[in-house]
Amino acid sequence: MKALVYHGPDQKSWEDVPDPEILKPTDAIVEIDTTTICGTDLHILKGDVPAVTDGRILGHEGVGTVVDVGSAVSRAKEGDRLLLSCISSCGSCSFCQQGLYSHCLADEGASGIGWIFGHLINGTQAEKVRVPFADNSTYRIPEGVSDEAALMLSDILPTGFEIGVRNGRVKPGDIVAVVGAGPVGLAAVMTAGLYGASRIIAIDLDDNRLEQAKVFGATDSVNNSSGDGWIDEVKDMTDGLGVDVAVEAVGIPQTFAACLKIIRPGASVANVGVHGKAVELPLQDLWIMDITMTTGLVSTSTTPMLLKLVAQHKLSAEKFVTHHFALDEMLDAYDTFGRAAETKALKVAIQRRRT
Amino acid sequence: MKALVYHGPDQKSWEDVPDPEILKPTDAIVEIDTTTICGTDLHILKGDVPAVTDGRILGHEGVGTVVDVGSAVSRAKEGDRLLLSCISSCGSCSFCQQGLYSHCLADEGASGIGWIFGHLINGTQAEKVRVPFADNSTYRIPEGVSDEAALMLSDILPTGFEIGVRNGRVKPGDIVAVVGAGPVGLAAVMTAGLYGASRIIAIDLDDNRLEQAKVFGATDSVNNSSGDGWIDEVKDMTDGLGVDVAVEAVGIPQTFAACLKIIRPGASVANVGVHGKAVELPLQDLWIMDITMTTGLVSTSTTPMLLKLVAQHKLSAEKFVTHHFALDEMLDAYDTFGRAAETKALKVAIQRRRT
Amino acid sequence: MKALVYHGPDQKSWEDVPDPEILKPTDAIVEIDTTTICGTDLHILKGDVPAVTDGRILGHEGVGTVVDVGSAVSRAKEGDRLLLSCISSCGSCSFCQQGLYSHCLADEGASGIGWIFGHLINGTQAEKVRVPFADNSTYRIPEGVSDEAALMLSDILPTGFEIGVRNGRVKPGDIVAVVGAGPVGLAAVMTAGLYGASRIIAIDLDDNRLEQAKVFGATDSVNNSSGDGWIDEVKDMTDGLGVDVAVEAVGIPQTFAACLKIIRPGASVANVGVHGKAVELPLQDLWIMDITMTTGLVSTSTTPMLLKLVAQHKLSAEKFVTHHFALDEMLDAYDTFGRAAETKALKVAIQRRRT
Amino acid sequence: MKALVYHGPDQKSWEDVPDPEILKPTDAIVEIDTTTICGTDLHILKGDVPAVTDGRILGHEGVGTVVDVGSAVSRAKEGDRLLLSCISSCGSCSFCQQGLYSHCLADEGASGIGWIFGHLINGTQAEKVRVPFADNSTYRIPEGVSDEAALMLSDILPTGFEIGVRNGRVKPGDIVAVVGAGPVGLAAVMTAGLYGASRIIAIDLDDNRLEQAKVFGATDSVNNSSGDGWIDEVKDMTDGLGVDVAVEAVGIPQTFAACLKIIRPGASVANVGVHGKAVELPLQDLWIMDITMTTGLVSTSTTPMLLKLVAQHKLSAEKFVTHHFALDEMLDAYDTFGRAAETKALKVAIQRRRT
Repeated sequence: MKALVYHGPDQKSWEDVPDPEILKPTDAIVEIDTTTICGTDLHILKGDVPAVTDGRILGHEGVGTVVDVGSAVSRAKEGDRLLLSCISSCGSCSFCQQGLYSHCLADEGASGIGWIFGHLINGTQAEKVRVPFADNSTYRIPEGVSDEAALMLSDILPTGFEIGVRNGRVKPGDIVAVVGAGPVGLAAVMTAGLYGASRIIAIDLDDNRLEQAKVFGATDSVNNSSGDGWIDEVKDMTDGLGVDVAVEAVGIPQTFAACLKIIRPGASVANVGVHGKAVELPLQDLWIMDITMTTGLVSTSTTPMLLKLVAQHKLSAEKFVTHHFALDEMLDAYDTFGRAAETKALKVAIQRRRT
Repeated sequence: MKALVYHGPDQKSWEDVPDPEILKPTDAIVEIDTTTICGTDLHILKGDVPAVTDGRILGHEGVGTVVDVGSAVSRAKEGDRLLLSCISSCGSCSFCQQGLYSHCLADEGASGIGWIFGHLINGTQAEKVRVPFADNSTYRIPEGVSDEAALMLSDILPTGFEIGVRNGRVKPGDIVAVVGAGPVGLAAVMTAGLYGASRIIAIDLDDNRLEQAKVFGATDSVNNSSGDGWIDEVKDMTDGLGVDVAVEAVGIPQTFAACLKIIRPGASVANVGVHGKAVELPLQDLWIMDITMTTGLVSTSTTPMLLKLVAQHKLSAEKFVTHHFALDEMLDAYDTFGRAAETKALKVAIQRRRT
Repeated sequence: MKALVYHGPDQKSWEDVPDPEILKPTDAIVEIDTTTICGTDLHILKGDVPAVTDGRILGHEGVGTVVDVGSAVSRAKEGDRLLLSCISSCGSCSFCQQGLYSHCLADEGASGIGWIFGHLINGTQAEKVRVPFADNSTYRIPEGVSDEAALMLSDILPTGFEIGVRNGRVKPGDIVAVVGAGPVGLAAVMTAGLYGASRIIAIDLDDNRLEQAKVFGATDSVNNSSGDGWIDEVKDMTDGLGVDVAVEAVGIPQTFAACLKIIRPGASVANVGVHGKAVELPLQDLWIMDITMTTGLVSTSTTPMLLKLVAQHKLSAEKFVTHHFALDEMLDAYDTFGRAAETKALKVAIQRRRT
Repeated sequence: MKALVYHGPDQKSWEDVPDPEILKPTDAIVEIDTTTICGTDLHILKGDVPAVTDGRILGHEGVGTVVDVGSAVSRAKEGDRLLLSCISSCGSCSFCQQGLYSHCLADEGASGIGWIFGHLINGTQAEKVRVPFADNSTYRIPEGVSDEAALMLSDILPTGFEIGVRNGRVKPGDIVAVVGAGPVGLAAVMTAGLYGASRIIAIDLDDNRLEQAKVFGATDSVNNSSGDGWIDEVKDMTDGLGVDVAVEAVGIPQTFAACLKIIRPGASVANVGVHGKAVELPLQDLWIMDITMTTGLVSTSTTPMLLKLVAQHKLSAEKFVTHHFALDEMLDAYDTFGRAAETKALKVAIQRRRT
C-alpha cells in the first residue's frame, strides 16, 4: 500500500510500504477513507519529537472501514465505518478506569500506549492502518454524519472540549476567553457553549483569525498584538474583575502569561497548548486568588458524546475543513497545511475517494 | 395603596390597604413596576395552602424600584431597579451558606423564611411591597434587560433550571425528556441547552402545548394521551435504552410514573411538580437501575447567572409573556391566567405603567 | 471438579461437575482459594430469582489463583492471586466507559453481562471458575492482604461504599444514618468514615446487631423496634433537623419509609436494599425538601481503591468473617449462614485449604 | 483597653488604646477570651505587608464573648461565646454567594473586606475587638469544645483543609504528600483523612518536625534535605508513578518545585504557602500530565463543619497548642512564637484568664 513515511527531519515521502497485519487478538485493520494533518505532524517533521524514528508512517486522525479484526475484537466488525481516536487505550488499567485514556499503562510492543499512532506505531496517513485495542479506541459513525465531520472528532474537537472547556470547568453564565484562534482554540470556542458560557472572547494577534472565530461561536474578539490596552478591553467585557475561564491554546510563555492577566479571583486557566519550555508563574500574586490551573493531553473520553451532538446537528464539526485532497495528493495537502497563514487552511480532508 | 388581597377560598379583591413600612434594618420598600400571577396563586385561592390567611396580599414575583431602605441595607439603594426573588433569605444561616436559600432558618416575625411573599407575609401583587433581607433577595437589573424578561427570573426560570435541569444533572450530549409543557416545564426546556443537551423531548397530553414547546427549544415532542405507544416513541429517540434525564413538571402520580417508564440505567429523574399526594415508587424494578431522583423548591441561587444570560441574549426570557395588563386590571389578569387552556396564557405581565 | 449446584427451589448439592474451559480469548480459568455465601444466594435458593436455572453453580464472590488464560488476556497471568469481582464487564461499552460496569452491554452468550456469576453463568462456589473479561473484572491482591480480607471486596464492601456512602454523597462533617445493621449495612457503616462523617448512627430492630455495629464504626445506635420515639432520638443527635444522609440497607417498605422520616432538607437517601415490591413515596411532603434519592447495583469500580485502603490497614475488611469452612463443607457453611440470627454469622469464609 | 499595636517594621507594643465601638448595624463588639499569633503577624512585623500601617492592632484569630451588637445583628447575642473567623464577609455579594468569602466585595470603610482583622482594621490581639458582619463571620461554640480547640478554627485548620485538602481534591484511597510540616502543613496532614487518604506523607528538612507530623496523622515521612534520593523514596511509597495529591505548605520556589517532582499523571498540586516571588513552571513536562494546580486564601466556609468534627472528637484541634500565656504576657508570647525552631512552638494560646 501507499503511505506518508517520515525519514528524519524535513524528510517525508508518499511511498510503497507493506500492508499492516493483525499482531494481537485485540487489533483491527482499517482501510482509511479520510485522514488529515495535525500541527503535531509538522512538529515531528521539524525533528521536535525525537521518539518518532525514520520509517514511521505519520498521522493520528482518521475515518475508515474495517477490513479485518483479531479474535478478541467483539464490537468492531468487518465493514463497519469507524472513527479512529488519536488515543489508543486498553480500557482496563488503572488510568483507563479513571477515563485517563491518554495515560494508558498497557504495553504495545516496547512502547507505552495512549497517543501512539504516527508516533510510536504506524499512523493513519496511509491506505490502511493497524488499530490496537479496536474495541476501546474506535467509534461506529452514525448515519447522517459525514466523514469530514467525524474526522474532527479524532483529535481536535475532543481536545478543545476536554482540555479547554471541561478542564476549565466552564459553567452556565461564565465568561470564557480563548487565547489563540488556531484550530484547537476554535475547537474550544465551538464547544464552550456546551456548558452555557454567556460570552466567549477570542484573543489573537491576527484580525483574520479573530473574524473566523466569530463563525465558530465567539461573541467577542480582542486583538492583543500591541501594548496592554487589550487587558482592560477584556476586563470591560466582564464586571471589571476578569474572566471566569481562560483557555491557553497556543503553547508559548507569552500566551500563558496573557491568560494570567485577565482572570478574576476564583477563575480557571486551562492550558491546551503544547509547550516547549518553562513559563514563569507569578505565585506572589496568584497565591491569594483562588485559581485553578490545568494541563492535559486529550483522553477522547468525550468522543461518543460529541458524536451524538454532531449527529443531532448541535455541533457543525465540518466547519473546520477548508481544503480537500485525494490520498495520493498527500504531499500537496502537507504543502497547503504547512502554509496555513497564507492558504488560510484550518483542517484539510484527505480522502480515498475524493468528494 | 391598592393590592390584591386574599379573603379565604375563592375570595379575592383589588382594594385599598395601608402602605408597607420598614420593620427591620435589613428591609427595603419597593414600588412594583411589573408583577405576575403564578399557578401557586390559583392553588392558594382554591384554599389548598392553609398557611395563607384572610387579609394576605398575594404574589411572589416582581420587578420594582426601591423607595426606602433600612439602616443595614448596603447594596440596594433608593431608585435602584430591582428584580425581587420569590425566595427571601438571610445569607448567613447554615442552609443559606450551602445555597439552600429556600430553607433559610432566619425568623421573620412568627414565621420562618424562604418562600414567604404572598404566603406568610404580604406579596408583590400590590403597588408597593416590603422586602425582607433586601441585600440578599434582590438583584439589580442590568441595562438592556426589560421588566418582562427580568420578571421571569423571580421564580419560573430559576425553578425550571435549578430543580429540573441542574438537579437532573443534565450534561453535554444528554437526551432530556420534560413531562408537562406548562410554564415551568417550558422553563426546563428553555434552559436544558445550558448544559448541552443533544435532544430535548417535550411530553404532554396537548398538541398545542407541544407545538409551543418547540418555540422554547424542544427538539422533539411526544403526545402521551393514549396507550403506551408513546414509551417506545421516546425510547426510539434514544438508543433504545431510554433518556438520560426525565423532568417531572406537573405534580400528579401519572406524570411521575411516566418519567420512570422512559429512563435508562444511570438516569436522573428531577421532580419539579408540586404534589398533593403520595406516588408509588416501583423499587422492585428501580433498585438495580442506578437512578437518582431529586426534589426541590427553587433557591434562586442561579438568578444572577440567568440574568447574565438574559443580558447577553442567550435566553429569551420574555417569550413566556403572552398577555399584558395594568396593575388596576389585576382581576382581569387573574381571569385570563385562570382560563389558560382557553386563553393560551403562559405568563401575564401586570404593569404599573402599561406598555 | 466439585461445585455447589442449584437444582430448583430449595434444591442444592455439592456435586461433581465438568471443569470449566476457556470459551473466549478474554476468559481466564481461576482455581478458587476462598469463596463465600451472599444473602442473594439464599434468595436464589428460595426461587426468588427465576433467571437462575437448574444446574447453575452458585456464588459470585471469590479469591483464587489463575490456572489458564485466553489469548487476549494480558494483565492476568498464570499463578496470579486474584480477587474476583461480582461484576463482569467488557471495559469498552458506553456504560463501562462511564464506570457503570453493572450495566455492561457486552454479550456473554445469550445473556447480558454485569452480575452474571452464579446467576447467568456458573459461579464461584466451586473448585474452579471461568472468569469472563478477566482483565477488567479481577484485581491482583497486594502482598500482606489476606484472602479473607480481599474476599470482602468481591461484593459487600464496594456495595456498602458505592451504593450507600458514595451515592449518599457523604461529605466531611455529615451525620449518616444506616437503617439495617446486616452485612451490607455494616459495610456502609465501615466506609462512611472515608468521607469524614462526624456521626454514624446504626438503626436496627436487634440490639445484638446494634452492638456489633459499633465494632464496625457506628458512633451511635438506635433501636427502632417500637413506636415512633426513635425518630426523635435520631433527630436529637442532629440539630433537630434530621440527618444529612440515610442509607437503606434492608429492602422492605418499612425501612425505606424509616429513612424518609429522619432526614433534613437537602439530605440524601441512598437505597442499597434489594426490594421485592413497590414502596410509597410521600411526594406531598418531599417535593419541597430538596432531597436526592438513589438506587444502584454495585459497579465495583472502587474495588482497587478499597484494596489500597485494606493494604494500608485503613479498613479492617476481615472483621466481617465470623466462621470458617473448607470447600467440601459447603453445605455446612450454607446451614450456618442460613441461620444467621441464631449463629450470628456475618460472612463465612469457605477455603480450599482451611486455615 | 490594652492591645498589641504595630508601629512600623520591628516596632510593636502592648499598650492602652480606646475601646472599640459599633460603627455599623451589622457589627458586634467581642471581648477576647483567647487569641493567638500567626506566621503572618511575624511577616507584618518585618514590614512585608505594607497595607498594615502604624497604629494597627494585630491578630486575626480569636475566641471571645459578645458584649454588644448592632441593630441588624440577629444571630449573635450578648453573652454568646463565639469563634471569630479570620475572614469577614457580607454573605450577599457575588463572591460570598459562591462561598468565596475571602474575596467579599463589601466595603468596610475605605478598605475592601475578606482578611481585614489585624490588617486593614484593628485585630484580635486585644481585650476587645469590633467584628464586622457579625452574623456571617462568627460561629457559636458548642458545649464541650474548649477555647483552644475552637481557636484553631479561626484560620489554621480551615486553611489546611480548604486550600490543601479540598482544593487538592483528596479522595478515598489517595496518597497525599504534604511538603512542609509547619503549623499549616500539619493542619493539612490532620484533615487529609477526612477524604479517606490511604497514605499521608510528610516531607520536610527537619527530622523533629517529621516526627511531630506523625502525631498529627502522617503515615510516612521523608526528609528532603539532601540530594534527590527523596524523590524515589516518595515514589516507592506509591506504585512508582507518584502521589495523587501534593500540598505545598511553605511558600518558596524550592518547595513548589518539590511538589512537581513527585506527582503522577492526573495529580493535583494544592498551593497553601504564601509566596513572595514567582516560581518556574516546567510546562514543557507538565502540559501532557493532566495535572490540576490550585491556589487560595482560606474562605472559612468549612468552619462550621470542622467545628462539628471537633465537637464529635473526630479532630483533636487542641493538639496544635504548645504554649500558654496570659493576655498581658503578649510580648512573651511573641518572643516564644518568634523563636519556634528553638522553642518548638506550633501555636500559642493567649488567654484573658490563663488556664
